[in-house]
Amino acid sequence: MITGKNYIGTTLSAKGTTTYTTFNPQRNKENTTVFTEATPEEINQAVEAASEAFKTYRTVSGSEKATFLNAIADEILALEDELITIYTAESGLPEGRALGERGRTIAQLRMFANVVGEGSWVEATIDPAQPNREPNPRADIRKMLVPIGPVVVFGASNFPLAFSTAGGDTVSALASGCPVIVKSHPMHAGTSELVATAIIKAVKKTSMPNGVFSHLNSRGIEVGQQLVQHPKVKAVGFTGSLRGGRALLDIAANRKEPIPVFTEMGSINPVILLPKATQEKAEIWAKTYASSITLGAGQFCTNPGLVIGIKSEGLFKFSATLVSEIVKIAPQCMLHPKIQENYQKLVSQAKTQKHVEIVADLHTNVDENYAQQTIAKVSGKEFIANKTLQEEVFGPFSLLVECENKEELENVLACMNGQLTGTILSEQNELDDFSTVVDILSEKVGRIIHNGVPTGVEVTTAMQHGGPYPASSDSRFTAVGTDAIKRWVRPFAYQDWPNESLPDALKNENPLQIFRKVDLINTKEAL
Amino acid sequence: MITGKNYIGTTLSAKGTTTYTTFNPQRNKENTTVFTEATPEEINQAVEAASEAFKTYRTVSGSEKATFLNAIADEILALEDELITIYTAESGLPEGRALGERGRTIAQLRMFANVVGEGSWVEATIDPAQPNREPNPRADIRKMLVPIGPVVVFGASNFPLAFSTAGGDTVSALASGCPVIVKSHPMHAGTSELVATAIIKAVKKTSMPNGVFSHLNSRGIEVGQQLVQHPKVKAVGFTGSLRGGRALLDIAANRKEPIPVFTEMGSINPVILLPKATQEKAEIWAKTYASSITLGAGQFCTNPGLVIGIKSEGLFKFSATLVSEIVKIAPQCMLHPKIQENYQKLVSQAKTQKHVEIVADLHTNVDENYAQQTIAKVSGKEFIANKTLQEEVFGPFSLLVECENKEELENVLACMNGQLTGTILSEQNELDDFSTVVDILSEKVGRIIHNGVPTGVEVTTAMQHGGPYPASSDSRFTAVGTDAIKRWVRPFAYQDWPNESLPDALKNENPLQIFRKVDLINTKEAL
Repeated sequence: MITGKNYIGTTLSAKGTTTYTTFNPQRNKENTTVFTEATPEEINQAVEAASEAFKTYRTVSGSEKATFLNAIADEILALEDELITIYTAESGLPEGRALGERGRTIAQLRMFANVVGEGSWVEATIDPAQPNREPNPRADIRKMLVPIGPVVVFGASNFPLAFSTAGGDTVSALASGCPVIVKSHPMHAGTSELVATAIIKAVKKTSMPNGVFSHLNSRGIEVGQQLVQHPKVKAVGFTGSLRGGRALLDIAANRKEPIPVFTEMGSINPVILLPKATQEKAEIWAKTYASSITLGAGQFCTNPGLVIGIKSEGLFKFSATLVSEIVKIAPQCMLHPKIQENYQKLVSQAKTQKHVEIVADLHTNVDENYAQQTIAKVSGKEFIANKTLQEEVFGPFSLLVECENKEELENVLACMNGQLTGTILSEQNELDDFSTVVDILSEKVGRIIHNGVPTGVEVTTAMQHGGPYPASSDSRFTAVGTDAIKRWVRPFAYQDWPNESLPDALKNENPLQIFRKVDLINTKEAL
Repeated sequence: MITGKNYIGTTLSAKGTTTYTTFNPQRNKENTTVFTEATPEEINQAVEAASEAFKTYRTVSGSEKATFLNAIADEILALEDELITIYTAESGLPEGRALGERGRTIAQLRMFANVVGEGSWVEATIDPAQPNREPNPRADIRKMLVPIGPVVVFGASNFPLAFSTAGGDTVSALASGCPVIVKSHPMHAGTSELVATAIIKAVKKTSMPNGVFSHLNSRGIEVGQQLVQHPKVKAVGFTGSLRGGRALLDIAANRKEPIPVFTEMGSINPVILLPKATQEKAEIWAKTYASSITLGAGQFCTNPGLVIGIKSEGLFKFSATLVSEIVKIAPQCMLHPKIQENYQKLVSQAKTQKHVEIVADLHTNVDENYAQQTIAKVSGKEFIANKTLQEEVFGPFSLLVECENKEELENVLACMNGQLTGTILSEQNELDDFSTVVDILSEKVGRIIHNGVPTGVEVTTAMQHGGPYPASSDSRFTAVGTDAIKRWVRPFAYQDWPNESLPDALKNENPLQIFRKVDLINTKEAL
């Protein structure tokens, strides 16, 4: 049941006076539950509880954490239709998307359960003593990854399940051994609270320490700011706008003890059409991209907001087909009136930029809160000259950049900001002919795609979701996939520590049967 | 030959007018070579050259980088006595230490040459396509670590070789594929330039791109500040004071594009004497610690600046023996008059703190620039009340904290700042009886030592040299050992990339014969 209250550990609390409701963009009206924003006192209680819980949770075994994560998955599934109903009512997204995203969320939970249940993720490294080394004996040194402490997670507006309350940040942090405090996203506060109830039930069922998870309501920015400033908070995960993300980065950097903040702040995900692909597959790619650009009303961080090609008949055909295909696609409801309003504002801004031409724009009336997909066009020269054109337009918008030649294409890429992804569409040996283009693009992105679309981020071990600033705050980590756990840990070394007092991961006997690096060799053998 | 000029890539340059000399603390007089500080123009040239060099150096093969690093080692050895002479003349450290540190520097170079020559360090991860997966096929995704770009290294005053120009930061960055710009330490500018000539010779001999290494002289803080602000600099390594390190962190955090800064800023490395060890081994540990505290005139980042015990006859004996042993040790020359002056200032400051008692203090006259080793004593209660007592006294100083009981010992640890190391001296099953002490200490440090001394940092795979702030700026990385390379890289993913265009580390055939994680399995097999 949704109460509108905060969870301080397992305790419901609503001491504040600031309240708010969520909005149903499909029906264009407010939802009924009233949510109470967390007070400074409640925020402090949640962090203190997390800090206290950390003392025991940091040493909870991998198999116990696996049981906990699987229990969260079970409890989320047990919410059944109630969750799907509130999800659609708070996001305007269709039921199919809700089900798909729930599936992804459950899969992520079970994936991390497997990772910590198996245990090798701690990267246990053992350099045994060399008592006879000259001139001095070498000590026995053993290292493993340990959790860093309470983590604050800011949910993403565009993934009310998979990147929110029990999403990738929360799950990877809980898997690592860090308590989590979720600052609930105000646009889907009900969905968030329901998921929080599932986590709280799992905490109780698996006897995890109280405070390992808290859930705080927040309408504005104050709750988040206070959380990031709290001395006992040790890391932050955030998905959202550049402005919001940068504000949190600055707060964290100015603390007495600076802490890592992982912000994923958006990207325009350039797609490069090389000449042969343009010539031979213009129509196929145009159809594929009409679909990718409008997927989920364009509300994906990997939405292709920029398509770059070299002027040619093929590029003309690509452009014409993209236009004719995209106008066939029915407009979709956006997440919230504010997001739709912001989309229209940014599209209007793009339209008024010098030499920007709108080539596809649905002039039909669309329902309230629905987005008109839009394609604009500009020359390479103008794109290079106008930094505004690199700003993300969150929604079903893409800008086609027409370059005069290969050199201009390289210059367009060279002037670009950091991105989550870059895509190259090519035929035959074009990648070799355009190796400089590939090189320049590679320095700007975290993931490079060949003959595909950037939307659809696989949750796998090899995934990299995070790119050079401003795509994310720290390109050295990923927000998606098993390696997301690495954001919440630090290496810790034991020197000459008695075997019986070492954590199991580092004991001579290797009781966990994990892979370890012993004297530089990967092995499951005991010492 | 030492010219006093800067190296912009392989070109000697001295356009500036600000000049300085180094100082011989043993002879208490200035050395003769005049060094010219780099100008803003020269700084910019060095960064532009590094950025240009990065375009090719980032893809130089592991075996070529290994050849380069081994060539640097060879060229440093070829400097022979000239290097040892200038090292001792600029640091006041004895020849034995110079030889030892050169050995460590050479060993580090060869160790990283082995790491990149072997190649598995890139953590190649391959999740093959699943074309028949329902509802959607899975793409082929392959990930590896790639270098992030030009790195600025600030050498440490206390390790003119092993943590300076060709020290751990430089070598790990070059190994990763990042160009390096060294801001030479003003106290050992001649040593630094000589080492730079060795690196430049190796650059030429192994045909590395010009700009892969530059070396800039600097008397004050301006050169470093300008380097950290430069948009084309992508990361920073620093070893020095908290004040200096924090200033660089703040500059980096306020850039338009914030960049990672790894600062290792000092630590007082608490040592905890548990009761049985105090009772049974007071004299042995006192002798061991008299030596550790004074090693290298106490000028180590892992110097034990704090010894904590519970009041007892044993602790009294430890204290008395420590005093009698430490006064037997001859005072040693410090690195520079300013360092000696700062040491005396901090010792005087400690002496005047409320209830601090000086228990060992050489009242004999010592030579100019020599340090008098000092032991002070304070109660646990006073230590908790007075944060000043946690400030690092760089030199042969240690503070003995006498606690009333176990609870006070825990409180002393709980109030402590982050540290590089923590040490526990115990007998029999004391670790079990003091598990809370171990837990609290573990949250504060990067490395925990049993029945040993914190000084002497092994350069191994399992080493962790870096702890919670303010010991270092980012406890998630190490400055010593092979994993130091992880500071300069980011993961990069290829999706559905043609096999022939992939880097060798990710090709189906595994031509480098490295360990890779393929579908979650560690293997050297081809796909």
